[in-house]
Amino acid sequence: MKNKIIELKQRPTGKPSLNDFEFTEEDMPQPKDGELLLQTKYVSVDPYLRGRMRDEKSYIPPFEIGKPLESGIIAEVVESNNSNFKKGDFVNGMLQWKQFQTSNGNGLNKVDRKNAPLKAYLGVLGLTGLTAYLGLEKIGKLQKGETLLVSGAAGAVGSVAGQIGKIKGCRVVGIAGSEEKIDQIKEKFSFDAAINYKTTSNMKKAIETACPNGVDVYFDNVGGEILDAALVNMNKFGRVINCGAISLYNKTETQTGPRVEPLLIKNSILMQGFIVRDFVKDFGPAQKQLGKWMEDDKLNYLETVVEGFDSIPQAFIDLFNGKNKGKMIVVV
Amino acid sequence: MKNKIIELKQRPTGKPSLNDFEFTEEDMPQPKDGELLLQTKYVSVDPYLRGRMRDEKSYIPPFEIGKPLESGIIAEVVESNNSNFKKGDFVNGMLQWKQFQTSNGNGLNKVDRKNAPLKAYLGVLGLTGLTAYLGLEKIGKLQKGETLLVSGAAGAVGSVAGQIGKIKGCRVVGIAGSEEKIDQIKEKFSFDAAINYKTTSNMKKAIETACPNGVDVYFDNVGGEILDAALVNMNKFGRVINCGAISLYNKTETQTGPRVEPLLIKNSILMQGFIVRDFVKDFGPAQKQLGKWMEDDKLNYLETVVEGFDSIPQAFIDLFNGKNKGKMIVVV
Repeated sequence: MKNKIIELKQRPTGKPSLNDFEFTEEDMPQPKDGELLLQTKYVSVDPYLRGRMRDEKSYIPPFEIGKPLESGIIAEVVESNNSNFKKGDFVNGMLQWKQFQTSNGNGLNKVDRKNAPLKAYLGVLGLTGLTAYLGLEKIGKLQKGETLLVSGAAGAVGSVAGQIGKIKGCRVVGIAGSEEKIDQIKEKFSFDAAINYKTTSNMKKAIETACPNGVDVYFDNVGGEILDAALVNMNKFGRVINCGAISLYNKTETQTGPRVEPLLIKNSILMQGFIVRDFVKDFGPAQKQLGKWMEDDKLNYLETVVEGFDSIPQAFIDLFNGKNKGKMIVVV
Repeated sequence: MKNKIIELKQRPTGKPSLNDFEFTEEDMPQPKDGELLLQTKYVSVDPYLRGRMRDEKSYIPPFEIGKPLESGIIAEVVESNNSNFKKGDFVNGMLQWKQFQTSNGNGLNKVDRKNAPLKAYLGVLGLTGLTAYLGLEKIGKLQKGETLLVSGAAGAVGSVAGQIGKIKGCRVVGIAGSEEKIDQIKEKFSFDAAINYKTTSNMKKAIETACPNGVDVYFDNVGGEILDAALVNMNKFGRVINCGAISLYNKTETQTGPRVEPLLIKNSILMQGFIVRDFVKDFGPAQKQLGKWMEDDKLNYLETVVEGFDSIPQAFIDLFNGKNKGKMIVVV
């Protein structure tokens, strides 16, 4: 039996396409002493992976051409030569896009299917939930009674951020790109209002109307023109969590926009780039709080589940077509 | 005897000119019960006043057409009907551009000519010194061993910011617009290196060379393209103090530039607008520290002193021609 692998064939220019990925095979890996053999079960595909496909210095090294891609994966331990794990355990970690792989166990967390569905550990209890929670906590410093604006609001991070805003007693307004998403934001995630940016000609005015007391915290997953429109609506001492810029990820040239510094000065606004990995030491208490809210039925989430190992590249590409609702997960 | 007044005649478009100001006269003001009569001695003219000449909502209300302008002024009490002040006292406050004016004493601070020259209370011991100190303290959180980059480095705020950086044990690099200023930055203010942006074609590269360990804190007084060049040189967790944007103040249209959000995310960079008035409660300890450094001869400062009440508008206009070295002050 051969082991299937997905490698980066070439660096995408603009929006990624299937041609940028290569399927290859290798002999089945054998775990050495102290190692595990893992079988991939659930694969998380996320917009930030687009950044790692570029050959530039960033917070994690870029993917290499001709090498396997990797992302957050839930795998089952099918063989163990490591006393910390036993056959049948499920683990969560940054793993390669392979059907089977070996690991020495470093960086893997055991996950318990009794507490929540396994897939939840890739989403609301995983990096996306932690991103929403810690972004609001560490940069947003969201306070009861404030107004929270969220872009990419139907997405895996945005939907959790908005719900945390409601738990904290804030007015929460979401921005998304379809009527179906707008309905979900309001009904499933209990946002107070939602704006469909695809059918709104004047975003600045739409945000002003939806946020009658201005915007105190803006959780930004998209960047670009929606960020511009949010910035002019920020209150004195407003905080912008620059968590993502999906509207710019596939652009091949440097994008320009209105200069932000006059607005920042005028209203003492803070903008800060946020990478959840900077706060690894806070993951424990954050996961506990998210788990508690899950138990209490205070956090809803959406998943778009795609089947089959071979579907991983297309599922990733579809993120940039807005095809996912909530977390995009591939079940192998 | 008549009292001279300088009013805003019209809102400037682009760079302010003498036509935007009107000299008028009024009868000599008479202090009522509880009031003082003040004679203007030293007038501070500052770039931020340009913002107040615009008719837009900001952190202080705009100047009104046909009304006197105002700025930081040191005045002598020439008559007092207020027991908190006596004839011969000197006071510092936000006062009108009049030769004489009355006041009920609110918002005025007595200044002592024994501790420092009176003019110093408009500069290194006044709002500009406080701006440098509190900007670094509250937003920059500058640490020993880090690299501090300062634009407008020969100016009233920039020169103090750089010297505080040296006191804190940092590598300090300044940016300014003439060889004379470059010499002052290095010799009088002890910066480690300085860049003349007017004779440098590639600012990004020049900053990279002057800051071999990257930039940890950027104290920005100018905005625009110099900010762009600084941002690409910021280290992980870098902090930008957006204190001023003099390069944009006289522009009549919204300026565009490279979008900042991808850079902020890539390196977890913080940018924050800074207005010293947001930190009034911290002025006391900050002034004490600045005064101590003055006494210990650790803070040098430059002044450009212009004479005569009638010179106030031209002195203000000359700020935008780069004619001042350090604090621009008019002695009446």
